[in-house]
Amino acid sequence: MTIRTLIWHEHRHEKKNKLVASLYPEGMHGALKKAFAGDSDFVVDHALLDDDEEHGLSEKRLAETDVLIWWGHAAHGDVKDAIVERVAKRVWEGMGLIVLHSGHYSKIFKRLMGTPCSLKWREAGEKEIVWIVNPNHPIAAGLPECIRIEHEEMYGEPFSIPEPLETVMISHFEGGEVFRSGVTYRRGAGNVFYFRPGHEAYPTYHNPDVLRVIKNATRWACNPARPWTGIHPAPNVPHDKAPYPLEVKGPRLHEDGQEGFR
Amino acid sequence: MTIRTLIWHEHRHEKKNKLVASLYPEGMHGALKKAFAGDSDFVVDHALLDDDEEHGLSEKRLAETDVLIWWGHAAHGDVKDAIVERVAKRVWEGMGLIVLHSGHYSKIFKRLMGTPCSLKWREAGEKEIVWIVNPNHPIAAGLPECIRIEHEEMYGEPFSIPEPLETVMISHFEGGEVFRSGVTYRRGAGNVFYFRPGHEAYPTYHNPDVLRVIKNATRWACNPARPWTGIHPAPNVPHDKAPYPLEVKGPRLHEDGQEGFR
Amino acid sequence: MTIRTLIWHEHRHEKKNKLVASLYPEGMHGALKKAFAGDSDFVVDHALLDDDEEHGLSEKRLAETDVLIWWGHAAHGDVKDAIVERVAKRVWEGMGLIVLHSGHYSKIFKRLMGTPCSLKWREAGEKEIVWIVNPNHPIAAGLPECIRIEHEEMYGEPFSIPEPLETVMISHFEGGEVFRSGVTYRRGAGNVFYFRPGHEAYPTYHNPDVLRVIKNATRWACNPARPWTGIHPAPNVPHDKAPYPLEVKGPRLHEDGQEGFR
Amino acid sequence: MTIRTLIWHEHRHEKKNKLVASLYPEGMHGALKKAFAGDSDFVVDHALLDDDEEHGLSEKRLAETDVLIWWGHAAHGDVKDAIVERVAKRVWEGMGLIVLHSGHYSKIFKRLMGTPCSLKWREAGEKEIVWIVNPNHPIAAGLPECIRIEHEEMYGEPFSIPEPLETVMISHFEGGEVFRSGVTYRRGAGNVFYFRPGHEAYPTYHNPDVLRVIKNATRWACNPARPWTGIHPAPNVPHDKAPYPLEVKGPRLHEDGQEGFR
Repeated sequence: MTIRTLIWHEHRHEKKNKLVASLYPEGMHGALKKAFAGDSDFVVDHALLDDDEEHGLSEKRLAETDVLIWWGHAAHGDVKDAIVERVAKRVWEGMGLIVLHSGHYSKIFKRLMGTPCSLKWREAGEKEIVWIVNPNHPIAAGLPECIRIEHEEMYGEPFSIPEPLETVMISHFEGGEVFRSGVTYRRGAGNVFYFRPGHEAYPTYHNPDVLRVIKNATRWACNPARPWTGIHPAPNVPHDKAPYPLEVKGPRLHEDGQEGFR
Repeated sequence: MTIRTLIWHEHRHEKKNKLVASLYPEGMHGALKKAFAGDSDFVVDHALLDDDEEHGLSEKRLAETDVLIWWGHAAHGDVKDAIVERVAKRVWEGMGLIVLHSGHYSKIFKRLMGTPCSLKWREAGEKEIVWIVNPNHPIAAGLPECIRIEHEEMYGEPFSIPEPLETVMISHFEGGEVFRSGVTYRRGAGNVFYFRPGHEAYPTYHNPDVLRVIKNATRWACNPARPWTGIHPAPNVPHDKAPYPLEVKGPRLHEDGQEGFR
Repeated sequence: MTIRTLIWHEHRHEKKNKLVASLYPEGMHGALKKAFAGDSDFVVDHALLDDDEEHGLSEKRLAETDVLIWWGHAAHGDVKDAIVERVAKRVWEGMGLIVLHSGHYSKIFKRLMGTPCSLKWREAGEKEIVWIVNPNHPIAAGLPECIRIEHEEMYGEPFSIPEPLETVMISHFEGGEVFRSGVTYRRGAGNVFYFRPGHEAYPTYHNPDVLRVIKNATRWACNPARPWTGIHPAPNVPHDKAPYPLEVKGPRLHEDGQEGFR
Repeated sequence: MTIRTLIWHEHRHEKKNKLVASLYPEGMHGALKKAFAGDSDFVVDHALLDDDEEHGLSEKRLAETDVLIWWGHAAHGDVKDAIVERVAKRVWEGMGLIVLHSGHYSKIFKRLMGTPCSLKWREAGEKEIVWIVNPNHPIAAGLPECIRIEHEEMYGEPFSIPEPLETVMISHFEGGEVFRSGVTYRRGAGNVFYFRPGHEAYPTYHNPDVLRVIKNATRWACNPARPWTGIHPAPNVPHDKAPYPLEVKGPRLHEDGQEGFR
């Protein structure tokens, strides 16, 4: 199947900051797209915070997305809560989600984790070594034992996330810190991957190994099952439709056919 | 140490419904309190939805609570979002949380799980057998191999929760369904336990084994560590304060001492 | 890619017991093969306990196997320890393993779990309902909300396995018990799935939904990465080959180039 | 309750190697004992590989042990398989187990994990910083944000263990590697903690923070429940003793009262 991939990008830094603009003349989304270049398994598009009233994330567009990639930093607060809930709903139904770098503090990641997702940080251009701790995980396909990045922002533990389903990568920073840089979760039918590298002041998204992780993760996150739309309601199963049909015993609060409380 | 336990209860059914009022003349919170009767390890109080503007959950009161027990059903929507965030904050800092029965749909449980927490249900007074699948877990202390409840509401899978840290109990229903009835999570420093039984139309909270689970879970959920207040901010670590002090290399987006984006 | 699937079967009951022979005239492995009939994604063969000195599991054959399916019951003790270690080694390197029914007590499953893998059981021909608790999991593709089996052996909790990576299915038994019937693990690079149904006294492996689970699980368990042969040794990283080359400081126990202890 | 703690030590290096003997004149077990000095919650003893035919681990002694601490390195192969099984049995029943440093390759740890437990290593006396990633975990009680060790052996990922129940600590090494230094598991009723530091060529077990981890972990690992001796057999539940008593339907392989196969 073709994996319909949508790169969502805040795209504010490139317009305000000469450094970022020079590193990413086509925007970070433009650089991220190159992860998928020439691979017919993927069709890739992008959506930007300032595209329209819905941040480029209409119901229709999300319905036609298999995996959403998310990069945001300075404008997390500008993302509307209603759009966050819309994205969460699609993740629960089965859309994959790849959250990049400062997206740890995005509304959608915090919404899905149920924790603050905070960490320590330092912007000193130090070296990062991303170690693969689960070498045959699909997200690590084709990678060396570690990814070396010459200049990166440091993120340090404790990273206040729930215990991951799988820890795929852990970073070593020149200044002495460590960080769980690649972690997986499932939320409803949706596969979620957080991947640390990608500070906008450095050319990280031109690094082929970094792009490979993002492509691998997109493939991994794609759930080909039909959307689990049944995840939202809490349906009543009538007593005479039970696998072992029952007579109602004892008292009741609800009448037949009545909806439950929400 | 003494475990400061607070039972939060919606307490609406008992006032409107004769059946519930007759089953729980002291309120469900009154019945739940008896789980701790005569045990000096616990000091127990209650807070009710309609106590005051803060649903009885002031900052001060939560700060003085080690474990919060939550029962709600018909009025989840009446709980203010700001209070939900306040409770979540305390859980992340280390307050334990026990969510009972229809509390699966409470704002606080959904907030901490990051999923819909939906399920199937049926109110037919059928038998429930709660099997202990992790017999030496602290939450199962002193229990038989299963808890038999003569009349209960059915909750059926799929229960749309994240993969639990531990599955402690699974229920068998007379009508043919199963349900993960006792599951643990950690969110930040806070231990969270969901426990299924407790439909208000039945005398479940007079069952000694059910009360024993709730008391065990309260003891288990208590985290004696000092509150992890550091979980909320994302502190900067200056380059010259790193474990291996650094010179700044390459370009930067942030100036020294500047706060990160939120 | 084509998934090279090998069905390993004890194949003793069919030869000694008329009931089993009449249910499975081509052997249980013959019935299991039909799960893959007509699907060119799979090439399927079988190996039997009494095939040869190696139980049909030569080094070469295992090296050419992507996913191994295991059914055993009465003769677990006849499987040689050396062959068990050989299979475990291949699982760690990336071969998938599907363990069926009474295989919970096979040497290979206990070896990989590190626990007794015991349970309760009853042979009364009762009804089993296998509920899908993770509906969009690849192993559940194309299944209804539950699989109904008219006659099965009961397996009851506690099932003494480690906490699963994912719980995909839970069974309800007519007599009142429950069981985690579909659980996943990873051991090294190998994906492991335990699936409960399949008592040899009943025609369970002629049930299309049961066969579908086995085929889905085989697809899920296949790890296309090259074998992780590096999982076995504990290699030394010389001080001058470290990412940050080091001078040796302080005393040492080992000389340069010396192997570590095992 | 008093926690009956037994420190098991290989105790070979101290007798052969002057360096180790000078660092640990009372043996490493002597140094480890000081972790519990003056705390009446613990009674602590030791057992040594060469104590007797059973390596000091008689049935009786293990039955009277709540938590076993294990240090071995050069003589893993000298530990008898029967004793390893005996220890595993007690862990499944509820005895806690703390595995230290090179014990990652001990028979008992590999037995309980079901994986090779291999890793990379280097003996260069480099600095290790052990970061706490789960700050309010009981094992981290009273610790600073990281433990700094001036000289240690390097252990590097990938560490071929199953996905941990909880990752409590991750180490940063001067040479550039990272390692999951503190991880928890449960096997049956037994709590298991692996803790990395402790190379015999360095004075690591005189470090108060390291000793504090070991004491905290011992307290955490203690399971006060009565031993789960029922974990070993797979009991039959007769049809007429089921929660819902049954008539036997269909054919059977086993006669009434017959034992299952093993």
